Amino acid sequence: MPMRTLVIGGDGYLGWPTALHFSARDHEVAVIDNFSRRRWHNERSTDSLTPIRLLDERIAVWRELSGREITAFVGDVEDPAFLDPVIAEFRPETVVHFGEQASAPYSMISRAHALETQGNNVLGTLNLLFSLRAHVPACHLIKLGTMGEYGTPNIDIEEGFIEIEHKGRRDTLPFPKQPGSLYHLSKVHDSHNLHFAARTWGLRATDLNQGVVYGIETDETALDERLITRFDYDEVFGTALNRFCVQAVIGHPLTVYGSGSQTRGFLNLRDTLQCVELAAEHPPRLGEFRVFNQFTEQFSVLELAELVQRVGRERGCEVEVAHYTNPRIEDEDHYYNAVNTKLLDLGLEPHYLGDELLASMLEIIGRYRDRLISRAIEPRVRWRAGELEGELPVE
Amino acid sequence: MPMRTLVIGGDGYLGWPTALHFSARDHEVAVIDNFSRRRWHNERSTDSLTPIRLLDERIAVWRELSGREITAFVGDVEDPAFLDPVIAEFRPETVVHFGEQASAPYSMISRAHALETQGNNVLGTLNLLFSLRAHVPACHLIKLGTMGEYGTPNIDIEEGFIEIEHKGRRDTLPFPKQPGSLYHLSKVHDSHNLHFAARTWGLRATDLNQGVVYGIETDETALDERLITRFDYDEVFGTALNRFCVQAVIGHPLTVYGSGSQTRGFLNLRDTLQCVELAAEHPPRLGEFRVFNQFTEQFSVLELAELVQRVGRERGCEVEVAHYTNPRIEDEDHYYNAVNTKLLDLGLEPHYLGDELLASMLEIIGRYRDRLISRAIEPRVRWRAGELEGELPVE
Repeated sequence: MPMRTLVIGGDGYLGWPTALHFSARDHEVAVIDNFSRRRWHNERSTDSLTPIRLLDERIAVWRELSGREITAFVGDVEDPAFLDPVIAEFRPETVVHFGEQASAPYSMISRAHALETQGNNVLGTLNLLFSLRAHVPACHLIKLGTMGEYGTPNIDIEEGFIEIEHKGRRDTLPFPKQPGSLYHLSKVHDSHNLHFAARTWGLRATDLNQGVVYGIETDETALDERLITRFDYDEVFGTALNRFCVQAVIGHPLTVYGSGSQTRGFLNLRDTLQCVELAAEHPPRLGEFRVFNQFTEQFSVLELAELVQRVGRERGCEVEVAHYTNPRIEDEDHYYNAVNTKLLDLGLEPHYLGDELLASMLEIIGRYRDRLISRAIEPRVRWRAGELEGELPVE
Repeated sequence: MPMRTLVIGGDGYLGWPTALHFSARDHEVAVIDNFSRRRWHNERSTDSLTPIRLLDERIAVWRELSGREITAFVGDVEDPAFLDPVIAEFRPETVVHFGEQASAPYSMISRAHALETQGNNVLGTLNLLFSLRAHVPACHLIKLGTMGEYGTPNIDIEEGFIEIEHKGRRDTLPFPKQPGSLYHLSKVHDSHNLHFAARTWGLRATDLNQGVVYGIETDETALDERLITRFDYDEVFGTALNRFCVQAVIGHPLTVYGSGSQTRGFLNLRDTLQCVELAAEHPPRLGEFRVFNQFTEQFSVLELAELVQRVGRERGCEVEVAHYTNPRIEDEDHYYNAVNTKLLDLGLEPHYLGDELLASMLEIIGRYRDRLISRAIEPRVRWRAGELEGELPVE
């Protein structure tokens, strides 16, 4: 069912393929971006492995190939003077909100980075809630959260809410959160604000607590190299599996932090698009705040490293696994079992991680290996006070 | 045990008496304030019932009476360029942090007020955590939270954490929060950030989830009228019992919102000082984040109104109770039972609410009745979208 769909952060790793995905399905698509991710890479002298086009060029290529138009609004989601007229003019029926600073290490670099992360994310989303309330109160807000909001409790992780029996009484309450970085905290704050906006103002929102995303291609970005999405592999913006694949291709030891027994939920980029689409097609009722845990499989970091090592070696790469002093403060040995049935119930058909997908990622990465900036691979941003941006020896 | 104690928000209703209380007990006291509360009153053309002196004058009077010095730092806690040198120079052993926008209605006036509240509160406290980490990592941060963070769950409210048994496993996790305003949400966000700073950076903090405070005088402020603390009674900054007492004195109907069966925890201003002192004298261990529920009694709003009515009538005031359309979105009939044993275990000796205390409040208020601005008594700030700042008829 095509709708007016606004993708915030529509120039990003997930936002751009999401915009194309909805556009290909006849939605009237607009994107908002302020190019923060490009700016943050400039700030750190890092870059996407894949050569990404400027937003207007990408949109022009898509127009040329598909005959479809995507409207771009350039500005800051936390700026009422920018955002409010955009919402009033475009009147989205669905907003997909990827427009936040999404890196845990970035939020831990320094005080300024922490304040920027929580300021942008929390105030930007709060500002968005006010614009939705003012102009399109029935709009469905699909907000990207993260599985990292939960931390690693010693009980099963439910989807946003948990029924608690306590001293002979019972209630269903928000699942308690113990996130592991100031970035993850910003998402916890967002979730609380969204819940409030739903129960107090009658807005409706889906919080997608997403696992770690891997992958490069989607059906739409594969149509033309000029449509490719960004692919980050540096210690700040790269995520575990994507980073390992790049390291395998260039012969850098896989950077496992600590023992690598930290377990997390993962999913394929293609499944991110599928999940967002399923959420959009099955909106919550007015006043409802719902939470989906958006991942398809759980792996430990070491399992992933060993998988990349095996598939890499089969393709002739020299792949070693190295254990680095964990720059984060986190439990490495912990219980982890998260529920993820709600999206499956809506019809999600997962693309599970397999040798073929990994081989394809290694192949695509190989095409761009000459673009690689190897300086930015090893972890330098540390969670502990007094150790910010320090050098870390390989153990 | 006297310490270097920094009171943030030291010009405020609770901050000023707290600064005097610690100074009287030989602490080396400094205060930070940016006079937000005075500015916000100017913005709304409202004022404290009690005539409060400028900060420098108050400090001079205290010096004259006690021979003790209080150092004032004027600036914004959310500004790193201001705060960081203050912490580095004063090197507090204890920080008592009252320096936040503390009004639920204020946070609900408009988008700008909401962004200001969450920006000031969350980023200010996050900035403070970075300065403590950098300069005085063993400092004990005593942070004012609010009982309103919990909302009104259908189970007993524990002190910050709850043991949950779930699918045969068990963990002690942060108590789930469902706060009732964007202000209360900012305190929930703070609590999550504080918890992170303790478990990740090894800082130590006490989160005082305070109930609704009533009262005017403390031992120190009663020494000289020029030391009096502020007393707010307007719909934005006044709290329930304080407001009712003013209304009783001037013959305005007591403004009960809805049925008045909303139940909350309350405490005397003198007990706030006692609780903060007990927390300071019994600091948590390094790396510990602890939460105390800081109230001494639970009342429904209607019970308080009827109490004020009875005591007021005994003193010859004409006191009516009026039920106003509730400007807030909240359950009026709900279960409420909150645990508050930790401060009692540390030695808190409550000043319970009684006729004598109420009569004394009415007497003091009577002295200042000619200063009253009656325009600002009735509730206008509404929680529901589209009803902001609207007029409300008395039912």
